[in-house]
Order: sequence, then structure tokens, then C-alpha cells
Amino acid sequence: MHDNVCTNSGDAFGTALMDCFHGTETHYIVEREDGFADPSTLSPYFADYPEWGQAEKRMHEFVRGRVLDVGCGAGRHTLYLQRLGFEVVGIDKSPLAIEVAKQRGVKNACVVSLDELVVDGAPDLGTFGSVIMMGNNIGLLHSFTEGRNTLKRLANVTSSDARIIGTTRTPGETNNPDHLAYQKWNRERGRMPGQIRFRIRHRRLAGDWMDYLILSREELEQLVEGTGWRLEATIDGDSEFGGRSYLAVLCKE
Amino acid sequence: MHDNVCTNSGDAFGTALMDCFHGTETHYIVEREDGFADPSTLSPYFADYPEWGQAEKRMHEFVRGRVLDVGCGAGRHTLYLQRLGFEVVGIDKSPLAIEVAKQRGVKNACVVSLDELVVDGAPDLGTFGSVIMMGNNIGLLHSFTEGRNTLKRLANVTSSDARIIGTTRTPGETNNPDHLAYQKWNRERGRMPGQIRFRIRHRRLAGDWMDYLILSREELEQLVEGTGWRLEATIDGDSEFGGRSYLAVLCKE
Repeated sequence: MHDNVCTNSGDAFGTALMDCFHGTETHYIVEREDGFADPSTLSPYFADYPEWGQAEKRMHEFVRGRVLDVGCGAGRHTLYLQRLGFEVVGIDKSPLAIEVAKQRGVKNACVVSLDELVVDGAPDLGTFGSVIMMGNNIGLLHSFTEGRNTLKRLANVTSSDARIIGTTRTPGETNNPDHLAYQKWNRERGRMPGQIRFRIRHRRLAGDWMDYLILSREELEQLVEGTGWRLEATIDGDSEFGGRSYLAVLCKE
Repeated sequence: MHDNVCTNSGDAFGTALMDCFHGTETHYIVEREDGFADPSTLSPYFADYPEWGQAEKRMHEFVRGRVLDVGCGAGRHTLYLQRLGFEVVGIDKSPLAIEVAKQRGVKNACVVSLDELVVDGAPDLGTFGSVIMMGNNIGLLHSFTEGRNTLKRLANVTSSDARIIGTTRTPGETNNPDHLAYQKWNRERGRMPGQIRFRIRHRRLAGDWMDYLILSREELEQLVEGTGWRLEATIDGDSEFGGRSYLAVLCKE
């Protein structure tokens, strides 16, 4: 069945973060292209270190140099690293997310997506020793092909000893029949099983549709091969969003 | 913007109640025709008397005779009145809601909507001394015209001293700009301001679109006029769903 709901294209994610920041909202909606709709809690986006997932908590062990926080959201990782003394630049395509991050104390934040940054090279944010993609934001690699292109381009804005540190989860590690059916459909269409096309909805706003990639260690290793990066380490743990996730550390070849 | 999400038509509301009953879900989604989407908590549907809204708590003072519980959901009002010794029949158009209600101990429950019951007169559930429409289920009158027809037909399945006892809320009592804009749009279209067209979404399921009516005392009094019923009493109070609501008691003229 196809639907005829009128939604207003807009910054649904950032608006939800702002509402949560002001204490007027606790949930937003993740709507997948197959009609699966999930009310998700916003509190993890504001969680301090003690509430982070096990794998997330190991992130700082691998960070070095200037840090680029990709999809920084409300800035929880940027704020943490700032407090540790790192110079961090948070980027997010959501203007209101960046506004929330700044209001929460993030010093350097910029409304730009990873895609725009690596393709256009603008704005010039300098060279980074670490790129972090936390909160499953390895997903912002979007797909096998786009992810490879992005990794190659990330070489241009990173130092020779740079690392990419991020979290993701293994698609098959779920019992949810809706998720398993979606992954099967992805395989049949020639997409990676964990290439999730969704958008955020909040109040009357709907964000852009986006491909967000979750993938296993083996899949990540294949994606990375020949991009100038290699998978250095992975660490398992519970996710702050529920379920399991793992921290992946990439270094330059 | 019109969207192309594929949803599966089905018993989204009942599935959500069943998931909550099994402890696997806490929220479902209410999606309005203007694109407003709201993650709503399921716990009120399972609330026992102490957690009910103030107006809801006064319901039993007005109940007499056999009771018809319209849109009984998970059966919280039916169960309460059963315990007090009333003979109650719960009806709901959601098969899974009725299944949950039965598993929770509701003795008499039937998968049928109020519309079907009053138009077809089938199944024959006998004559009632009270019709309750709790949890804002005065909304199941749908619209001014449909509501008047339903009230007239309800005369046929009720005793001469019968009462209709229900809750609703006044549309204008909100500060939410999205709700106020929707009410304005309704007025412009010649609908009652609180005639809310929405559907339930849960997981991959989307329920049918439905008009659900919230209305002020004055609007209710107008709607009721000439249907064989009159507005006997109203009682104000906080709603178990948040905000304010009021209990309305109708008796036969």
C-alpha cells in the first residue's frame, strides 16, 4: 500500500534534539522505507560517559591529534574529548543539532555532512589525526561503493598516522523478524543486508531519506580493502541504543 | 510533499497492545493526515484505577445496568466494572485488542466497531443501561453528522433510562502550534476543529485512517441536540494521556 501523508521536509532530527534539550520531548520516529516505524528514545544523544555503551567507552584509547566528530549530533563525544583536552571539530548536516551542540558547550561545530566535506573539501577544517564516527555513525558511509569513495577521500584531510574510530553493529545479530525480512529484501536487491534506507520524523517534519550502513567485521574489512585504510582492531560491547555493537579502529595502510 | 512509504495495512493498534502486554514494546505511533507523527506511550491502556485520569475515575458513579464498553482496547474499564459486579460487554474493532482483553480476564468481548454494531445491529448484544466511551472514545463518534446518526441508533440498543458516559477534551486547550494549525485547517475545510484524521502505525503495520472527534462541551451539546439524548453532566480533570479532559454524561430526553 502506498500512502498519501503530507509531510514537511525539514530538520526533523535537529528539531527532535532541540525539543529533548528543552525537556519537551523524549522520542522521535525512525521510519524505514518498508514502512517499519520505530519510536526511538532521544536520551542516548545526551548521555554522559558513564551511560555510554561498552564499546563507545573505549573510544578515547585510540584517539590522537585533532579530532573530527562525524555526525556529532548533540555533541556528547565532542564534549567528552574537549574535556580531556583534545581539539575537536564536530560536524553534522543538521543545523539544529549543531545549534544544540553549541549551546551545550561544543567549541568548534560546523553544519556540513561528511559527504559534502570530503567531496567539496569545503569548508576547509584543516587536517585531522582522528575521525570518530560514534553512535553507529560508521553508517554514514551509506553503502559499499559510497563508503569506499568516502574513505579514499578522507585520506586527504587526515595525517599519515590518522585513525578512523567508529561504532556499528552486525546486521544478523537480531531476532526481529521485520529486520531480518528487510535484510533479506536488501540482499535480493543487490544491496548490503544492513544498508538501511530510513528517514527521521518528528512532529510534522520529515528528514531526507538516507542510506545508513550497519555491517559485520567481515563486511567492513572488505569495504575498507584498497581504500588506503585497514581494520586495525575491533572491540565488542553492549550498545547505548540497546543490543550489541562493536567499536572499529581503522588506520592508514 | 507526498511520500512513497510502503506500509502493510493491518491491526497496528492491537499488535501494539499485544506487544506491550508481552513487555516487548512501550510505544506506538499516531500519524495524522497532515504528517504530524507522535510516539505515544501504551501504558495508559493497561492502567489500573489508581492511575486513571481524574475525570475517568468518576465514571462508575454514573454507570447502571448492563454496560457496553465502546473501544475497550486492552479492557481496563471493562475489567474494573466487572470487578465491581457489573455485567459488561467490551467491543473493539481490533481483533488483537480483544484477544489481549480476553487474556487479561474480560469475560464478554466482541470484535466489532461501534459503527457496525449500530448500523447492522449484529451481533445482537442485547440491551444496555450504560454505554461507556472512555479514554477519549467519544472520539469514535467520528464527526458531527456521523456522531448524530450513531447517537440516534444507540437509542435502539439501550434502555429508556440509559446513559452514555465518555471522555473527550476541548480542542482549543492546547499550546501546541501543530495542533492549532491542524484545527485551523479543519475549520477552513468545514470540518469540526477537533475532527482528527489519523492512523496508528506499529512496526510495519498501519491501521485504517479514521476520523476521531474531540470537542468542547458546547460542541457536544450541539451535536447531541435532537438525537434523543441530552448532556446531563460534565466533570473536568487531568487526562491519563496528559493534558486536560472531561467526563460527559448523556441521558435520554
